[in-house]
Amino acid sequence: MSLADLLFGRPLHSSEDNKQRIGWLVGIPTFGLDALGSAAYGPEAALTVLLPLGLAGLNHIRPLTTAIIILLTIVYFSYRQTIAAYPTGGGSYIVAKQNLGARMGLLAAAALIIDYLLNVAVGISAGVGALVSALPALQPHTLGLCLLILAMITIVNLRGAREPGVLFMTPTVLFVGCLLVVVGWGLYQTWITGGHPRPVVPPPKLPTPQAAVGLWLLMRAFANGCTAMTGVEAVSNGVLAFREPVVPNARRTLTVIVAILIVLLAGIAYLSRSYGIGATPPGQPGYQSVLSQLTAAVAGRSVFYSITIGSILMVLCLSANTSFADFPRLCRAVAADGYLPRSFANRGRRLVYSEGVWVLAVFAALLLVIFGGVTDRLIPLFAVGAFLAFTLSQAGMVAHWKRTGGPGATSSMLINGLGALATGATIVVVVAAKFTEGAWIVMLLIAGLIFLMQAVHAHYDWVVREMTPKPNFLDGGLLAPLVVVPVETWNSVSQKALCFALTLSREVQVVHIEHEGSDGALVRDWPKVVEQPARAAGLPPPELVVVRSPYRFVIQPILDHVLAVERERKDRLVAVVIPEVVERRWYYYFLHNQRGKLLAALLLVKGDRRIVIVNVPWYLGAP
Amino acid sequence: MSLADLLFGRPLHSSEDNKQRIGWLVGIPTFGLDALGSAAYGPEAALTVLLPLGLAGLNHIRPLTTAIIILLTIVYFSYRQTIAAYPTGGGSYIVAKQNLGARMGLLAAAALIIDYLLNVAVGISAGVGALVSALPALQPHTLGLCLLILAMITIVNLRGAREPGVLFMTPTVLFVGCLLVVVGWGLYQTWITGGHPRPVVPPPKLPTPQAAVGLWLLMRAFANGCTAMTGVEAVSNGVLAFREPVVPNARRTLTVIVAILIVLLAGIAYLSRSYGIGATPPGQPGYQSVLSQLTAAVAGRSVFYSITIGSILMVLCLSANTSFADFPRLCRAVAADGYLPRSFANRGRRLVYSEGVWVLAVFAALLLVIFGGVTDRLIPLFAVGAFLAFTLSQAGMVAHWKRTGGPGATSSMLINGLGALATGATIVVVVAAKFTEGAWIVMLLIAGLIFLMQAVHAHYDWVVREMTPKPNFLDGGLLAPLVVVPVETWNSVSQKALCFALTLSREVQVVHIEHEGSDGALVRDWPKVVEQPARAAGLPPPELVVVRSPYRFVIQPILDHVLAVERERKDRLVAVVIPEVVERRWYYYFLHNQRGKLLAALLLVKGDRRIVIVNVPWYLGAP
Repeated sequence: MSLADLLFGRPLHSSEDNKQRIGWLVGIPTFGLDALGSAAYGPEAALTVLLPLGLAGLNHIRPLTTAIIILLTIVYFSYRQTIAAYPTGGGSYIVAKQNLGARMGLLAAAALIIDYLLNVAVGISAGVGALVSALPALQPHTLGLCLLILAMITIVNLRGAREPGVLFMTPTVLFVGCLLVVVGWGLYQTWITGGHPRPVVPPPKLPTPQAAVGLWLLMRAFANGCTAMTGVEAVSNGVLAFREPVVPNARRTLTVIVAILIVLLAGIAYLSRSYGIGATPPGQPGYQSVLSQLTAAVAGRSVFYSITIGSILMVLCLSANTSFADFPRLCRAVAADGYLPRSFANRGRRLVYSEGVWVLAVFAALLLVIFGGVTDRLIPLFAVGAFLAFTLSQAGMVAHWKRTGGPGATSSMLINGLGALATGATIVVVVAAKFTEGAWIVMLLIAGLIFLMQAVHAHYDWVVREMTPKPNFLDGGLLAPLVVVPVETWNSVSQKALCFALTLSREVQVVHIEHEGSDGALVRDWPKVVEQPARAAGLPPPELVVVRSPYRFVIQPILDHVLAVERERKDRLVAVVIPEVVERRWYYYFLHNQRGKLLAALLLVKGDRRIVIVNVPWYLGAP
Repeated sequence: MSLADLLFGRPLHSSEDNKQRIGWLVGIPTFGLDALGSAAYGPEAALTVLLPLGLAGLNHIRPLTTAIIILLTIVYFSYRQTIAAYPTGGGSYIVAKQNLGARMGLLAAAALIIDYLLNVAVGISAGVGALVSALPALQPHTLGLCLLILAMITIVNLRGAREPGVLFMTPTVLFVGCLLVVVGWGLYQTWITGGHPRPVVPPPKLPTPQAAVGLWLLMRAFANGCTAMTGVEAVSNGVLAFREPVVPNARRTLTVIVAILIVLLAGIAYLSRSYGIGATPPGQPGYQSVLSQLTAAVAGRSVFYSITIGSILMVLCLSANTSFADFPRLCRAVAADGYLPRSFANRGRRLVYSEGVWVLAVFAALLLVIFGGVTDRLIPLFAVGAFLAFTLSQAGMVAHWKRTGGPGATSSMLINGLGALATGATIVVVVAAKFTEGAWIVMLLIAGLIFLMQAVHAHYDWVVREMTPKPNFLDGGLLAPLVVVPVETWNSVSQKALCFALTLSREVQVVHIEHEGSDGALVRDWPKVVEQPARAAGLPPPELVVVRSPYRFVIQPILDHVLAVERERKDRLVAVVIPEVVERRWYYYFLHNQRGKLLAALLLVKGDRRIVIVNVPWYLGAP
């Protein structure tokens, strides 16, 4: 069993595809961890903006959350329709491309690519950050822990489409279960106390108000709270990962994810107000997350508290998995259209688009390393990509219904139009609120990525034109090539090369470079060792060309000679036969000059279409 | 003008060798910096051992130095004879090899290689260490300064044999001049005061005695003081670097170096006693070098003091240059006998043995980086290699005179025999005194290096046997090869490859790997695009072999197929024609799979003598 088998599992036969498909239940951890994990930071992000209002800020969290849930519902219905309309994997890229044109498709793709990449880095480092603040002894290992979790998620995803869903089911169930218990118990307490429950552990006091409420502040709180919606688009991208019947399965997964998310968001918002829980200033001593305050207020600091907080940490770390499920599929779709390297469309040993997984892992690792595993500064960049994709896919669906028509098209158009408007307006708010914090970087990155994808496409187009086959492949003629054999000393390796050269063509030239280190044996023995045997075999003897090299260079004179021959004989291919000694161990290569390899490489770089390189290996110690 | 021209100078014609030879004067900085620099640390090393004796220790420095000077004189006469006996570059390796056998030669070579390498690292870091203790602001840049000086010396040495001598002449003259002034003025002061000069700046008080004098302590002081002799062997190694008449020039250089060294050693020892100057505990606050104390005592802390100390620092740093002059020549001699990679014997663009220079620079840089630019711990390892080389070369000369005989042979034998005995005894003392401090590491390294050199020699021997030419190079027969062409899609690249294949042989096989990503076009169009044109041209149509790859591997099935063909057809060479797209820019390679390169590499590794690799490049965008 090889290391690859051990890490990634045995290679899968292409016909085993069906066994790798997932049901709606496994779909929830596969595609839902990002969306569900949002419940842990969306409400907190909104409450942080409300912080300057003091206790009065809590009056706004319920209306704000209601608005977010309405928007989420619209987006949900929109993606339900997308799944039905594009059962082979919709996703914003395909929807936008097919309905709004290639440019809009690329815009959606670029936005999602950036979003997925950021999601991996931010998700993992948020989880590790919370873990480290709970266990400060781990502080010096922050980056190492981040990379360890990244490696783990990468390997699990390379093992096939089913593995992550099955493996991450337990933490997902734990997370949802714990939070539902907190919300349910809290609501019950609120109900029996007539709206004024007594916290088991009182939350920290909110600061005294420092600002009056204003529209701009509320808009910023809304924009921040919208980060709770990221990840909802994931299912529509990966429809093809589901078992038959594909559409109902995918829809059911989406419904369950969104339903849980709505319950959690609503519950958290409602209870924050009831228990008087606000955000604490992030990054300062005394910081405590909203969910930690809430759990402690409802259930006290018991074992249950630890389990809940532990499951939140895990889901935050694993929310990166949604990116790993979707990014490779997105890249495959874009690569199939020629906007990314075609290799993104190859399925690896376990039938997943491995290259996408690797690329995502490498770039996320780079981000983590550059930011030392602390990616707080990336969080503001986060929602732009997701909301751009929301808007484009819904605008695309409007165009879709307009084109296809049919019963219910008008009401569908209305829903999608409303969704596009609402998410579009949210982008404006998000960008305006976060432009200076870094949203401009995302916009630059998206523009750069679009440029890159278009350049890739243009290059592929050009390559296809360049490689158009001729009408008759024998047009170039069937003349034997001119053969050039560089020979340094006469030994069995050069013998084999020269012998092979004579089977290729009757016109063979041996080039010998003479410098201060040469012993002159080849020139001296030439008539005896080459010319006589050739004549005896009835062959025209090869020509010996001796080039003097007073500056002791060896490769350059050979290269010059080959290029000169090629220029002179415009009608012929020139085959350069390079004898090469092959050693059994890499370290023996220090004992030989690597002139053959260097010459071959330089011939490739400096040569042109009429030069062909023939490598004649000689295996030392072969029988 | 290229970067290489700018850094290293234009390439030199092999006939310009004469202009690169040096005269006796330039020979002094070229070969003498190590020996002369020893004056700065040899006496100090002896005085440090005498430190526990307090003021009484100074009573022993004059007799000890006298013994060292006698030994030095014997070694000097021995090397004078070596130069005359081996005018093509003696050196301990050649002398030991020719007179005591190959094993003793390798022992001398290994000892010198280690010695030269240590000398570079220790010399540079000693100089920089002194500089840094004078200007503590430079402390954080210690390693950077070391590497900078190493790079400077490396480049100067790559520029040709003359450059270092000419460039380093000024610091050498300054160093010798200043020290001679100090010694001369000090002696004059001692004389006019009747042996009791009054120091201008009194040296630090010596500590109260903590031990009584004993033989072992004196022997250790002697062994330490002997480090003053390292570097004396350098001239005999590099005789061929001198202009005609070679022997007198080389001898004059050696004479001048040793004469200056003796004057300096004697002067320093004499004045230490007169002025009451001892060592200060190294590495502790208040440390001050012996030469610094002496200069201050004789001449005060004037401008002259600064110039003297500056020139000592410079010569310490530049003492590495002796290694750069000798190491490449030594490696060339060893490589010419097949005990080191042959490339050490190639002369580079400026007629120096560039590979030796590079290897020395890289290993010295490694040592400096590993020790962070502070190589104090390497100093104890230092003298073993040099004294081993002294002993072997003198023992070799004894055998030489015994063999050649002639007038004066007996007295020469006597001198060399005495030298061998004395230096041999010194090794015993040095090893005994420093065994636990690290001399055992040097002995291990020397043993390892000898093993390595013998392995290299054995491998070369084997390769020569393996590559012995056959009596007739056409013995293998002149049958055209079987040609295998892997084709993925039908385009101009595969067309060119197939057309070329048909010029090589009438038996051509096209291998096509069919997997889930294949479109089936090649199989469908095969009769039309290949078979018909081939028949029309009167050729047997190539055979199409379709290999199904349910696990989506592409290279492995091709490799398996080629190896199977090769096993079946034992009488024929198999030529694998690999079409390759060549892009104009490296970053375009991300857009293409590199299967061609990978297949070629795997064929080299897994193939055998009957497989030949033909690379047919297609240049995108070529006219």
